[in-house]
Amino acid sequence: MGNKTANAISPTRAEDYPEWYQQVVRAADLAEVSPVRGCMVIKPWGYALWENMQRVLDRMFKETGHVNAYFPLFIPLSFLEREAEHVEGFAKECAVVTHHRLEAGPDGGLVPAGPLEEPLVVRPTSETIIGEMYARWVQSYRDLPILINQWANVVRWELRTRLFLRTTEFLWQEGHTVHAAQEEAIEETLRILDLYADFAESYMAMPVIKGEKTPAERFPGALNTYTIEAMMQDHKALQAGTSHFLGQNFARACKIKFLDQAGQEVFAWTTSWGVSTRLIGGLLMTHSDDDGLVLPPRLAPKHVVILPIYRTPEERTKVLEHCESLRRELREQTYGEDRVQVEIDDRDIRGGEKGWQHVKRGVPLRLEIGPRDIASDSVFLGRRDRPVKEKKPVARKEFVETVIDILEEIQKGLLERARAFRDERTRTIENIDEFIAFFTPQSSEKPEPHGGFAVSFWAGEDDPRTAEILQELKVSPRCIPLGLAEEAAEGRCIFTGKPSRQRVYFAKAY
Amino acid sequence: MGNKTANAISPTRAEDYPEWYQQVVRAADLAEVSPVRGCMVIKPWGYALWENMQRVLDRMFKETGHVNAYFPLFIPLSFLEREAEHVEGFAKECAVVTHHRLEAGPDGGLVPAGPLEEPLVVRPTSETIIGEMYARWVQSYRDLPILINQWANVVRWELRTRLFLRTTEFLWQEGHTVHAAQEEAIEETLRILDLYADFAESYMAMPVIKGEKTPAERFPGALNTYTIEAMMQDHKALQAGTSHFLGQNFARACKIKFLDQAGQEVFAWTTSWGVSTRLIGGLLMTHSDDDGLVLPPRLAPKHVVILPIYRTPEERTKVLEHCESLRRELREQTYGEDRVQVEIDDRDIRGGEKGWQHVKRGVPLRLEIGPRDIASDSVFLGRRDRPVKEKKPVARKEFVETVIDILEEIQKGLLERARAFRDERTRTIENIDEFIAFFTPQSSEKPEPHGGFAVSFWAGEDDPRTAEILQELKVSPRCIPLGLAEEAAEGRCIFTGKPSRQRVYFAKAY
Repeated sequence: MGNKTANAISPTRAEDYPEWYQQVVRAADLAEVSPVRGCMVIKPWGYALWENMQRVLDRMFKETGHVNAYFPLFIPLSFLEREAEHVEGFAKECAVVTHHRLEAGPDGGLVPAGPLEEPLVVRPTSETIIGEMYARWVQSYRDLPILINQWANVVRWELRTRLFLRTTEFLWQEGHTVHAAQEEAIEETLRILDLYADFAESYMAMPVIKGEKTPAERFPGALNTYTIEAMMQDHKALQAGTSHFLGQNFARACKIKFLDQAGQEVFAWTTSWGVSTRLIGGLLMTHSDDDGLVLPPRLAPKHVVILPIYRTPEERTKVLEHCESLRRELREQTYGEDRVQVEIDDRDIRGGEKGWQHVKRGVPLRLEIGPRDIASDSVFLGRRDRPVKEKKPVARKEFVETVIDILEEIQKGLLERARAFRDERTRTIENIDEFIAFFTPQSSEKPEPHGGFAVSFWAGEDDPRTAEILQELKVSPRCIPLGLAEEAAEGRCIFTGKPSRQRVYFAKAY
Repeated sequence: MGNKTANAISPTRAEDYPEWYQQVVRAADLAEVSPVRGCMVIKPWGYALWENMQRVLDRMFKETGHVNAYFPLFIPLSFLEREAEHVEGFAKECAVVTHHRLEAGPDGGLVPAGPLEEPLVVRPTSETIIGEMYARWVQSYRDLPILINQWANVVRWELRTRLFLRTTEFLWQEGHTVHAAQEEAIEETLRILDLYADFAESYMAMPVIKGEKTPAERFPGALNTYTIEAMMQDHKALQAGTSHFLGQNFARACKIKFLDQAGQEVFAWTTSWGVSTRLIGGLLMTHSDDDGLVLPPRLAPKHVVILPIYRTPEERTKVLEHCESLRRELREQTYGEDRVQVEIDDRDIRGGEKGWQHVKRGVPLRLEIGPRDIASDSVFLGRRDRPVKEKKPVARKEFVETVIDILEEIQKGLLERARAFRDERTRTIENIDEFIAFFTPQSSEKPEPHGGFAVSFWAGEDDPRTAEILQELKVSPRCIPLGLAEEAAEGRCIFTGKPSRQRVYFAKAY
């Protein structure tokens, strides 16, 4: 940080957004690339953020009647093959276990041995293995609904990976439910969509559009996929969570049948839904700035960092004592699911560098406390939602009394700022020329952020010319927004000119 | 349950202990065998128990300065090979990923494709992959200690599996720490051993012997392995948790080096330690009886189940209202890490069968509440630590006021009973004949539980005759107990007659 001039992160967002992203992940010590292709190591600060997300989501799932369970990591190949679209969707990118031991090879090194009769796939998602178990558990309508969630690791052999956004192994939760009636399953699918949107907005401070995926973008094997889509600071969309209505497809594939109240044997209706460590990438790209990570207080692993300042051993004793008593006072207060989390950072590092580390990690509030602050019974406060240099003294008592309000003000401010950002870059577009212009950078040399969410009528058909335009622009239909469909007056598809009653969100996407 | 006579579980412990174990797992709905060889499905009740264990352990780890992180599921084969003993210990039982996609084979079905240049092993434990990362993170003594824990799934290709006790995939936590000095690493190893023992006794109500493993029983690559050993109701030992002092073995293998305060580059000292879902098997075999699971209240997912009793719809309304208000009153009280957990079970199942389900699942307290109980303002209480038929009315107010005391009384009673059971079956044995008699069943037809913990002097050498005796008896040295070594007067090895100052615990073991 010695020769830093203006910002802690180089390059800035404007200079090179993808590289800025990597540098923020690194500067905030969230994760790093591992020596295993495409797999990441989630470091303690990143994992603490994930734990906070888990804790809130887990409570929300339990409050809506779900319980957790755990199913095998491995899926027999034959199970995956039971649902045709499903296996097609995942066959190209899965880790396959073919042997169950190692033995000395011809050149002395170890080689795989003990070939398996049937290869096992490391789960890319668990519909088929969980469906197999559900088929055993469900006999009668009295056994329904089944409302189970699993916290797990999954593996998809991605060719191009980026920390959190797309990795070979990632952590997620996957809900898998079984219902006696179609409407119940659809209700569940939408209940979870609402839950995800609530989590994104209330905790991540990340506004989202709730909608239905167009057929080509559905989960392989689903009748309908619902999604929450958020806008990142480069104006691209991030699919942040999905909830699938699976109809009876997987029930048929896995033979989940039951005797209904009339004594008839019928297939059940299932859903599945998930969010993953990808959310951390979304959170980063929603709020962070050219000084590093910015964390919404409700998910921050630490809310306040205290930076003691002293010169002599005598000062040190006095200052640390003061900081410790302040920490205790702050800790007494409840914030969200737990206490106000306070760290005293007394490491032997130059003060400036130390302060910047916490800026880059996104700690919401920084307090510098030295002998002068103790004398005036105040704290020197820096807020992560304000410029780094903008610090001011606050009476200690006032700070303690208002710390929760300040945290909530930051939380609210982040959401409002993100919503304003998105709304400014969301445009209703009625014709194809405007659509193309919206998604075309001004200069081809340095592609400035451009575009955003285009909301346009679309007939939704398989039309080669539409596909060509979208491919050229690198734009995809993100979702058919819920609620909007009925409001919309009738219009004409901007691609084909055909009548349409359906507005669709389009964007470039991660 | 219709034709049940005396006990809910058949066979009883005395009739067939291993089969009784499987039947308790099934009756309590903890887990079941999956279609994937050796992998289990942990069902909601079993997983809730694991979540409670995780929550307590996680708090204990954090209180002792540890943080969580996450490392890759896959380990490149070459990493595993870096430590000679380590790879030898795990090579015979690991799942090997050799391909990264599936494609249509000659007969139309899918076959593995995209062979990997280097096979990946699904982690059986993570010393080598974590060590690789630590080597990158540690440069200077200022970077130490590193105190990281990981909650994860691991895979060991076991030939003979039993639910919870030995499964191909299991869930665990693995701590991996790095220290600048040998003494610090040894201190950490023992701190965790104490933490595990405290968890086992204070939460699982499972008394344990803390000790050091004999050389042949050490973790592959460790200089010293410490263990907690518990006695099951068939008198066998269960290794319930281990903490390893790895010396500099893995630091050398993974090149974890740092500049010490004198500016010298030196290898670091590391430890690793873990407990797994095996604890659930241990908990089951410590407390359960011929009516099913018995849960220590501090880990029970539910503390109280309320069974409403009514005949008419009017009674139903009144009874349920009463139960709900009782539930709210109970929930207001804090027990352990959370509130008193209360379930009202109003399912449409015959009362007897319903009550037995909760007995078999080990819910500590059952309350039957019908119109008569409401009239007398009392609850009809059954305790899981008492015979099932022994139920008695308690004034409602008294029950609400003493529920925490009752739960703690049960908790304490379970520990005392288990400790008495173990102590009765622990014998100091001074000669080989007595040792052989202790571990030999009275009748060969029906091997009654026999033996237990034998505490005997042992010279601890590689002696073929000793090995032969132990193998024939199916007995192994479990540990050299901590604390006992210094107290012990000098004696003679019961196998070789050589002088020995070391008493060792011997037992048959899981």
